[in-house]
Amino acid sequence: MDSKPSTSRLLLLLTLSITFIPAAVFAASGEESSSWRSLLRQVVRNRWTSGGGDHQDAVEKAMMKEITLKNYCESWRLNVELHNVRGFGAVPAECTSFVAKYMSSSQYKSDVQRATDEAALFLTSSFSLAGDGRDIWVFDVDDTLLSTLPFYKSHQFGGSAANRTLLEEWMAKEKAPAVEGMLDLYHDIRRRGLTIFLLSSRPEHLRDATDGNLIKAGFHGWARLILRCDEDGSGRSVQKYMSEERKKMVNEGYRLWGMAGAQWSSLLGHPKAKRTFKVPNPMYYIE
Amino acid sequence: MDSKPSTSRLLLLLTLSITFIPAAVFAASGEESSSWRSLLRQVVRNRWTSGGGDHQDAVEKAMMKEITLKNYCESWRLNVELHNVRGFGAVPAECTSFVAKYMSSSQYKSDVQRATDEAALFLTSSFSLAGDGRDIWVFDVDDTLLSTLPFYKSHQFGGSAANRTLLEEWMAKEKAPAVEGMLDLYHDIRRRGLTIFLLSSRPEHLRDATDGNLIKAGFHGWARLILRCDEDGSGRSVQKYMSEERKKMVNEGYRLWGMAGAQWSSLLGHPKAKRTFKVPNPMYYIE
Repeated sequence: MDSKPSTSRLLLLLTLSITFIPAAVFAASGEESSSWRSLLRQVVRNRWTSGGGDHQDAVEKAMMKEITLKNYCESWRLNVELHNVRGFGAVPAECTSFVAKYMSSSQYKSDVQRATDEAALFLTSSFSLAGDGRDIWVFDVDDTLLSTLPFYKSHQFGGSAANRTLLEEWMAKEKAPAVEGMLDLYHDIRRRGLTIFLLSSRPEHLRDATDGNLIKAGFHGWARLILRCDEDGSGRSVQKYMSEERKKMVNEGYRLWGMAGAQWSSLLGHPKAKRTFKVPNPMYYIE
Repeated sequence: MDSKPSTSRLLLLLTLSITFIPAAVFAASGEESSSWRSLLRQVVRNRWTSGGGDHQDAVEKAMMKEITLKNYCESWRLNVELHNVRGFGAVPAECTSFVAKYMSSSQYKSDVQRATDEAALFLTSSFSLAGDGRDIWVFDVDDTLLSTLPFYKSHQFGGSAANRTLLEEWMAKEKAPAVEGMLDLYHDIRRRGLTIFLLSSRPEHLRDATDGNLIKAGFHGWARLILRCDEDGSGRSVQKYMSEERKKMVNEGYRLWGMAGAQWSSLLGHPKAKRTFKVPNPMYYIE
């Protein structure tokens, strides 16, 4: 083992210390305290062998930079959600591990849960349906009902245009899990008698795979799955495509009660639903 | 001193431990280590005197609840920014200390900074002004240029309708500081030759105080400050009021390049600017 502790090793130890301290506090009088004690001892030993002085300064600087980087990545993520940051081709390289961590965290689950709770609240507070089947709810598919996290995780969140082929190959495998919390909302909406339309920018050739994946993940009972024509090379933005599809629905006499999507482009434009719900998603941006 | 450590005291100690551990890690070989050591010793002593067992379980449960509460409040804040949570009269009581902490944190500063950085990027990337003074940028005032944080902090974030009078009394004192980071953006925009309009839902009788406060906080050189008529009891929402004011600007021949505001109601509706920037603000909601 190298006698000079690398910055990353120290950071890891520090993270571990912080993670274990709560347990340590409550276990301090018993046998279980040995783990955090040895952990701290190890950190201290590493400090001793590293010599202090300049090296200490360097490590402290690296620590500060790490904290600043966390602030930076948090701010980046928030500003994506605020729709202040737009048009990014991929997650900034320095934030990919941050985003990966967030997407696997209890915080992300809690964030989605809060969005679905608000949708449920809206459903109970202001619904009087005509009962003619023309009251609809529109869901986007990717990262709204089905999670693409496994794909992005194994592709370093480098989800730019170049990876579209790989992404579609992955989608064809029908292995996307449900976005946790959305299953309940989906079936809640369905049981309330709303007609469900799925409006996705997935291409038409993925229809069977999309049907199959949705069923496997626990979704069923939608009235329409609208996908993009494989020939739709018109350069229409997704926002334009989705607005135009919603326009068709309204022209057919449907009433748009709600929409949920993980991209602003799935929600902006006209016609609008009475309420829109933006599912958090810092992984990619679609115009 | 009570021999049974209260949950809140333990949490405080834990927070302090976590806060000091980074320093402790680097100071462990020297004199400065005494502080975290005595801190840990104190925590351990408190544990010993408390007896463990059931009490330990209760404290652990309280800890878990606290962590869940943090997740909950983070999710609440994010969903306010996503415009999923709407129409709240006040910050939920259980989240007021969380919001107070966030608004005073380096994270909030960093979040605002990121929004201004994106606005600056937009300014450099896509601007070709006609030079006729009709290219405009619209800023909201409260929590966009001037911070109401000092007011909300001293009123437990209970900013519902009942506190409107107190808020206006506080505004009349002209003590609101600038929102950090917005001064630079404001002057950057001004120097680029854009005409600046300030559009606020503050009432007309606060005109002098608003002028005075803005100048004190470092803003100057705006072309218009639009406030709401004191008689405007029409029940118009702020979104409607602001849209209508923007409509007047467009009818006068102004071109709306950008808008910045801390409420979605300042940014939604028509006409729109080419780009909008939502400044983070979990303190209150204006329809």
